[in-house]
Amino acid sequence: MFRSIFRAGLALALVAFAALAPASAQTADPLASWNDGPAKKAIVDFVAAVTTPGGPDFVPPAERIATFDNDGTLWPEQPVYTQLVFALDRIKALAPANPDWKDKQPFKAVLEGDMAALMASGERGGVELLMASHAGMTAAEFSRIVEDWIAKARHPRFDRPYTDLAYKPMVELMAYLRANGFKTYIVSGGGVEFMRPWTERVYGVPTEQVIGSIIKTRFQMRDGRPELFRLPQVEFIDDGPGKPVGIAARIGARPIAAFGNSDGDIEMLQWATMSGRRGLGMLIHHTDAGREYAYDNQAQFGGIAKALEAAAVNRWTVVSMKDDWKTIFAFDK
Amino acid sequence: MFRSIFRAGLALALVAFAALAPASAQTADPLASWNDGPAKKAIVDFVAAVTTPGGPDFVPPAERIATFDNDGTLWPEQPVYTQLVFALDRIKALAPANPDWKDKQPFKAVLEGDMAALMASGERGGVELLMASHAGMTAAEFSRIVEDWIAKARHPRFDRPYTDLAYKPMVELMAYLRANGFKTYIVSGGGVEFMRPWTERVYGVPTEQVIGSIIKTRFQMRDGRPELFRLPQVEFIDDGPGKPVGIAARIGARPIAAFGNSDGDIEMLQWATMSGRRGLGMLIHHTDAGREYAYDNQAQFGGIAKALEAAAVNRWTVVSMKDDWKTIFAFDK
Repeated sequence: MFRSIFRAGLALALVAFAALAPASAQTADPLASWNDGPAKKAIVDFVAAVTTPGGPDFVPPAERIATFDNDGTLWPEQPVYTQLVFALDRIKALAPANPDWKDKQPFKAVLEGDMAALMASGERGGVELLMASHAGMTAAEFSRIVEDWIAKARHPRFDRPYTDLAYKPMVELMAYLRANGFKTYIVSGGGVEFMRPWTERVYGVPTEQVIGSIIKTRFQMRDGRPELFRLPQVEFIDDGPGKPVGIAARIGARPIAAFGNSDGDIEMLQWATMSGRRGLGMLIHHTDAGREYAYDNQAQFGGIAKALEAAAVNRWTVVSMKDDWKTIFAFDK
Repeated sequence: MFRSIFRAGLALALVAFAALAPASAQTADPLASWNDGPAKKAIVDFVAAVTTPGGPDFVPPAERIATFDNDGTLWPEQPVYTQLVFALDRIKALAPANPDWKDKQPFKAVLEGDMAALMASGERGGVELLMASHAGMTAAEFSRIVEDWIAKARHPRFDRPYTDLAYKPMVELMAYLRANGFKTYIVSGGGVEFMRPWTERVYGVPTEQVIGSIIKTRFQMRDGRPELFRLPQVEFIDDGPGKPVGIAARIGARPIAAFGNSDGDIEMLQWATMSGRRGLGMLIHHTDAGREYAYDNQAQFGGIAKALEAAAVNRWTVVSMKDDWKTIFAFDK
């Protein structure tokens, strides 16, 4: 009984929704999470300019390429990079099978939660942790490990899955650009195989449009099946000047819009905006300690100060999360 | 007067064409350059199987990925690789600015047309030629050099631009796969920047779907403009076991169909067909000395014998150009 009433109500609701949908779709703001202001205006004006046929800044759809940094641009990078959290969790999970780690840095520091000793292990320590957690299995196995982890792990402050923390205004922006004929790419210093299991679901970006750092893999046959085995060796670092290099190698065409948040994005924004034709460069500035984080510079994230300077020189739009974003996360309000 | 009659005739012709088009489109064979036989049947059966919703071999469109070797698979590799012809032409063009090349191998051999001395310079000589011809300029400059060269150079036997030599059956096959929801990628041992200037026009494959060997590039500012400078250092060789590695790094998903012609394609075909789900592996066998070339093995091209053996073991379809292809080039007949 309850069920059939429920069904009738649902059917009515669907009819009502279908009747309303076309009108609301026409009037809905595709950038509803952006406050009116210079940042939103810069986006809308740029898209209008490059999509107006016959206009001086018109760009054919095939050349409408937009590239997005990930950490700090599409989701938080605080209190530490998500991929580093993953690496530390992996080390803990692998510790029983590696008893020597109890007395060996940087593993000892991870297992004892000794951040000072961890930091003291420096870049070499970081690479050792990265390799121990990211190599030594097949690409398919690693994908499954990432999928399992990202389904369960929760951000320490927001107590939600990391994939819930995609910035709503950026997800809207990517969809808005795609609706206007753009291809949207992620171009991150993070590992490409760490991002691909969830980028389509979270950002609408398919695997082949995810560019990132890569470790070496070896093709091999095992039990009559081909597999790609992940080796403890870095193949390519997709950060800083590596970003335009990665874009050229993988896309083979130059973006006209680029979005970042730190010094490691400067070259990508230069590449997108200093070509002689109209480009859009945008820096996400973390100014909202209440709803997310506020930081102007922090060594762990490679710095922001130079990017802000470059933004002033190159007329890139600086987005203040506090002022320009009505909503930050989909779960807000 | 002539012009207006011409226009009226053109208008009539367009009307007639528009009236005919739907009918002819329905009846036209998308693989018209393929003779009926096991190869054509293997293609049609495979496509039907993976595109039939609810069928046991159905593959969703997003996972329909097909990868194609280029040299010897999509266009001729005889009498030598086209990119090698390009390299030798570049050395000759650059010789006046490099007077020391007159007495220095392997350049001396190139300038004197001394093939024996050239071969004697071995792999090291080959790399030196490649680097002298392919590095030392920006990526944009190199693209223009390739475009200029490919517009003028002619194949020694067919006396036509190399881009006229795309195999018509393979161009049809790529279009047929795309019409059935596939994404078609080129995965070549050749340099990615050598192919991208013309792959869209010739094969319908956009730059971001061209995977190939890569040399190192450096991001730099010159006169206030960012540029990518090509360095004389190999970054990645997209051949043999490198093909699945390149596919994984760039596409991030596994192909279900792969097309090659030599030992350097074995791993790519293994990767595409030995996944547990239905796959199509196909080897183009050069059996037509009259219309193209006939060769069963040739050291210059890395061998074919092992690929033919692997085809027998793995049930890959071997295409005999003589028997399976009605037409080889668009300019035939």
